[in-house]
Amino acid sequence: MTPQDLRHQIRQGQFRKPTAGYCGDFAQANLVVLPRIHADDFMRFCQRNPKPCPLLGVSEPGQWAMPLLGSDIDIRTDLPGYYVYRDGHKAQELTDLCDIWQSDFVVFAIGCSFSFEQMLMQAGVPLRHIDEQRNVAMYRTSTLNVPAGPFGGNLVVSMRPMTSRDAIRAVQITSRFPAVHGAPIHIGDPALLGIADLQAPDYGDPVDVHSDELPVFWACGVTPQEAIRAARVPIAISHKPGHMLVTDLLNADLAAF
Amino acid sequence: MTPQDLRHQIRQGQFRKPTAGYCGDFAQANLVVLPRIHADDFMRFCQRNPKPCPLLGVSEPGQWAMPLLGSDIDIRTDLPGYYVYRDGHKAQELTDLCDIWQSDFVVFAIGCSFSFEQMLMQAGVPLRHIDEQRNVAMYRTSTLNVPAGPFGGNLVVSMRPMTSRDAIRAVQITSRFPAVHGAPIHIGDPALLGIADLQAPDYGDPVDVHSDELPVFWACGVTPQEAIRAARVPIAISHKPGHMLVTDLLNADLAAF
Repeated sequence: MTPQDLRHQIRQGQFRKPTAGYCGDFAQANLVVLPRIHADDFMRFCQRNPKPCPLLGVSEPGQWAMPLLGSDIDIRTDLPGYYVYRDGHKAQELTDLCDIWQSDFVVFAIGCSFSFEQMLMQAGVPLRHIDEQRNVAMYRTSTLNVPAGPFGGNLVVSMRPMTSRDAIRAVQITSRFPAVHGAPIHIGDPALLGIADLQAPDYGDPVDVHSDELPVFWACGVTPQEAIRAARVPIAISHKPGHMLVTDLLNADLAAF
Repeated sequence: MTPQDLRHQIRQGQFRKPTAGYCGDFAQANLVVLPRIHADDFMRFCQRNPKPCPLLGVSEPGQWAMPLLGSDIDIRTDLPGYYVYRDGHKAQELTDLCDIWQSDFVVFAIGCSFSFEQMLMQAGVPLRHIDEQRNVAMYRTSTLNVPAGPFGGNLVVSMRPMTSRDAIRAVQITSRFPAVHGAPIHIGDPALLGIADLQAPDYGDPVDVHSDELPVFWACGVTPQEAIRAARVPIAISHKPGHMLVTDLLNADLAAF
């Protein structure tokens, strides 16, 4: 199935589930939609926090097409689920944005860890949450994002347990992909990130860390969603967790070197 | 001399010349200043053209400080020369922006090749234009930038002649620095970039390419200046060529890996 095929199925209402594992060679993206009045602050926020918020694309105001990310993308209909936030609170869960689209909406597509996980698996680095069919464990850290306008909040990280050997390989591999969070931001001691208990993630599911393993932490695409909620803007939209925008960009083409 | 010392000298009017060769361990930056009404289009332009326009920082509207790039920066006074463009034409050359500052100005600092040239020289890769004390040769290519709002135009590249061995090393070294234009965009045939005559650069000075050398082309920070001129916005400001913003960021810290 090509990304175009998958987006077409979603648009027709025939696919309403998480996109992980589909079109694995192609980049999937986190979605943020904001009115133009907040868009330049949010773009500044992403520029200042490139590890959690690597921008894959920004739409023209009011346009639902993103031709640089994929032929015929209609951002109103091409994700299998959307969350609508009003004043910072989740107000609605929708399967399309047609009824609430505004002519001043600006769309942000932000890189997603699915891309680097694909690269790690191809290199033979095992990922326990995938082997155990769980969501990756995510934690709100004590690290403050660099603020811009109303957007700020704390860095959210994902954690994957690895042997030291695999952790080193994972640093090498993910360093090649700054557009999808890049290298880890921490290895080893969760307390240094302000994480009290690895078994109690703030999002996703816990996984065991074996005695011969290190927890390896990456900046996470949930960070911008925390920032837009904390900013309490009158309206903001994100993808439903796991229900991503599937682009025509090959993961391999995102390599910086 | 620290970057703070140099900026202080500039601010006092004691330094009014090109900044190349000063504070060599620290990143220097291209400057673009635009009114807020054009800032979000220009930020989109940079996001879509990251090789010529790698954003090191974006100010808050109306603020001349850039605390993320350096303590006590005052963008109105801390560059040794400025060009003011009105309706796309160079209208004034100034040594400070105090009299023309607007409360809606947004400042963009864009990575500069001085940083990667420092890294190449440290690795023993000779740079002929520096040995011959010339400006680097720059060419307007036939490659169109990805447009955003009124900003578009053609990619400008800089060219450095190198032996094949040095060209390969230069690809490796500059790939580590996407924030300062990253890897070359072309090696070899200038005609494939629409460049008719290497001895007739559009900016800077020509240098010889020896028979055992390849011309190596990098995306160039003159590209955004071409884009703002071509956009014919009512007012835009850039640094005077070679008269850059000297930041507190260590070049070494810009390495992506």
